[in-house]
Amino acid sequence: MSRDSNIVYIGRKPTMNYVLAVMTNFNSSDMKDVTIKARGQAITTAVDVAEIVKRRYMKDLNVSDITIGTEEIQQQEGGTRNVSTIETGIVRS
Amino acid sequence: MSRDSNIVYIGRKPTMNYVLAVMTNFNSSDMKDVTIKARGQAITTAVDVAEIVKRRYMKDLNVSDITIGTEEIQQQEGGTRNVSTIETGIVRS
Repeated sequence: MSRDSNIVYIGRKPTMNYVLAVMTNFNSSDMKDVTIKARGQAITTAVDVAEIVKRRYMKDLNVSDITIGTEEIQQQEGGTRNVSTIETGIVRS
Repeated sequence: MSRDSNIVYIGRKPTMNYVLAVMTNFNSSDMKDVTIKARGQAITTAVDVAEIVKRRYMKDLNVSDITIGTEEIQQQEGGTRNVSTIETGIVRS
């Protein structure tokens, strides 16, 4: 990753926390692109964040590409569990 | 949409119901591509379905493109609410 890109990991906090995090990245550091990453139930929040930033606050942004995948998570009780992931690239046009 | 494409809408049923629906589309009707559509919390299920079909059952499939969007939903108590949507295209390679 170059210095021109940055990553926001989506978790269980309120959606607007991540919306602010993405906008802060774009505004405070001349970032040209930000990647939003999430897994499991947070995937829905990741899509919400991308849509809210783009439609409500920074209309010069575009979703560049979206990739989905699967990660193996180690479970405390042993064994592994598969969880889906999403990566959404957002670029300033 | 041509006859070569088909759509599976993801709702609140168990994930494997939709996995089967996608596979049935590919197997029973010579479909070359299937589109998975979901909105709101079902977005996570949509990603799970695409990953499970591709990794576990039909390894000749690829995710062709993923688009996200926003829909306005009419609320019963009046007014509208925005909900995020996802469309995942799956093609047989």
